[in-house]
Amino acid sequence: MAQKVKLSTIADELGVSTATVSLALRDSPLVADQTRDKIKQTARDLGYIYNRRAASLRTSRSGIVGVCVHDVMNPFFGEILKYVEHELDRRRQTFILSNHYDDLSKQRAFVDTLLQLGADGLILSPAVGTPAADIQLAEGNDLPTVLIARTIEGAGVCGFRGDDAFGMALAVDHLIADGHRAIAMVGGTEQTSTGRDRAAGWRSALRKAEIEPRPEWRIEGPRSRDAGFQAGLAFAKMDDRPTAAVCFSDLVALGFMYGLARAGLTPGSDIAVIGYDDIEEAGIATPSLSTVSNGQAEVGHRAAGALLDRLAGNPPSEETVLIRPTLKIRDSSRFRG
Amino acid sequence: MAQKVKLSTIADELGVSTATVSLALRDSPLVADQTRDKIKQTARDLGYIYNRRAASLRTSRSGIVGVCVHDVMNPFFGEILKYVEHELDRRRQTFILSNHYDDLSKQRAFVDTLLQLGADGLILSPAVGTPAADIQLAEGNDLPTVLIARTIEGAGVCGFRGDDAFGMALAVDHLIADGHRAIAMVGGTEQTSTGRDRAAGWRSALRKAEIEPRPEWRIEGPRSRDAGFQAGLAFAKMDDRPTAAVCFSDLVALGFMYGLARAGLTPGSDIAVIGYDDIEEAGIATPSLSTVSNGQAEVGHRAAGALLDRLAGNPPSEETVLIRPTLKIRDSSRFRG
Repeated sequence: MAQKVKLSTIADELGVSTATVSLALRDSPLVADQTRDKIKQTARDLGYIYNRRAASLRTSRSGIVGVCVHDVMNPFFGEILKYVEHELDRRRQTFILSNHYDDLSKQRAFVDTLLQLGADGLILSPAVGTPAADIQLAEGNDLPTVLIARTIEGAGVCGFRGDDAFGMALAVDHLIADGHRAIAMVGGTEQTSTGRDRAAGWRSALRKAEIEPRPEWRIEGPRSRDAGFQAGLAFAKMDDRPTAAVCFSDLVALGFMYGLARAGLTPGSDIAVIGYDDIEEAGIATPSLSTVSNGQAEVGHRAAGALLDRLAGNPPSEETVLIRPTLKIRDSSRFRG
Repeated sequence: MAQKVKLSTIADELGVSTATVSLALRDSPLVADQTRDKIKQTARDLGYIYNRRAASLRTSRSGIVGVCVHDVMNPFFGEILKYVEHELDRRRQTFILSNHYDDLSKQRAFVDTLLQLGADGLILSPAVGTPAADIQLAEGNDLPTVLIARTIEGAGVCGFRGDDAFGMALAVDHLIADGHRAIAMVGGTEQTSTGRDRAAGWRSALRKAEIEPRPEWRIEGPRSRDAGFQAGLAFAKMDDRPTAAVCFSDLVALGFMYGLARAGLTPGSDIAVIGYDDIEEAGIATPSLSTVSNGQAEVGHRAAGALLDRLAGNPPSEETVLIRPTLKIRDSSRFRG
């Protein structure tokens, strides 16, 4: 029955023209907000379904923006997405999400879906190993793309991420000033720009203080809470254990602290721990987690803003914007070296 | 340039017919897996974009399934979605996600988007207050819908969720057997079927043991880790504090334990705490969290299966399937009453 409701049915119900109904359903700025809302409500009440598939063949905008990240369950991405979502909501863009789990074929399938749907744009934290050509394929098919959290050399699109080397150096400098000399770095891999840059920041801050990082201080790999937990258990058993650890992310640090506690060590009293990201949980963890604030709000707002600029017809920027991180010292790093 | 690549270009490149190319790009079972993959790879290499918008006007299936939950950052939903995603991936359905944050208008906007895109189906954990009519609107417009985690009376569609009253009673029975008489319930609201059923299970298990729950033992509200933390701080200061607490969810319980620890109490030694859901973090938390395993894997697999059955042309079931929970005792409930 719903399929038989026509524009004219809605128009008759409200005493407006069918043209007004049609414009309102397409979010045309020619129709006042209040009128549009009333028309949409009536359309809903009558069971009318606007056929965007047919309409999007006639007009150039679908109103859909795709967002694809490693894993939306990771609170770091979740917090960025909240801000992206807020901006897109205000502009009446529908927001659809997907995880790629660092699987290139999953990422490609989602991008294909967006292209096939005629989506307006893409906000992407690219999967490990994404070639620049994949971004150019999207762009070449009228899918403006903005990168977040990770960047790709030669992609030719704008991106927003924290200055990871700078941020990690802030954490290491603080620990050195507190008397630590043996400082481990737990988690992350060399395969992502984030992992490479944070490890580089750790290494260069140590060397600046004339400390040569020992190979066993670099505990590469962990990127999840669970892997952080396993690293904490193993760390507690190390001979000649470092007195402090900086972690790839808060998620890794929170798992690492669970692991240390399970092994009988108290973070903040027996060892200093600093995370990275300043997710909401960092403040309520006990002990509360010292961390590097990574500007999720700014990344989210600015990435959405840059995409909306593109949709408004502005030319693309190719700039990677580095957001400057800040250090938040809490209880987990109270222990002094 | 990409727009000019035709089916025949791909067919020529591989020496197959244009009909085969067309079928392969639409995932037809008439084309062998290996051939289809080769054709898709070539199409990608050549920059060909299959126009699903136009195609979906000719055929009845878009290959898209929408999933909408309160908040994908909540690990309980995240874990269900992993299993849903796994099932849909195997059947080559594209999976798009959205949060409704218990905002009916956000949920409706996403459902409208799915209808407008001609999506094949919807897996929904309905927002608080969703009227049955909203589900009937989706169904009436050929969007088969399956509910997860929460159900709606009179919606007339199938749903999968844990037996919440039964599960919470398991936790309370265990604490009573361990000698506890004063058992609080922290978190959840009366506005969702989940909150109502879990509180009912707590209340009836106490009454079965001839314990009348005191009003101050029901700490209603918290549904996030942060709210659990605040509840833990307040709980530690209670006069005549209960010796045990069951929590609405693991997320609330983990925050609650942080709050207790911050106030100087050790969960498992000074008070018994049991969560609900058995999310992955429960096992690595320190102390490890006793909890009620809520069958995320089964909910996810079966919900995806039920939707795929509908897509295969089977008639809808109107049944709500209650998955039977089990109790997992770990360290956080070691303290005896």
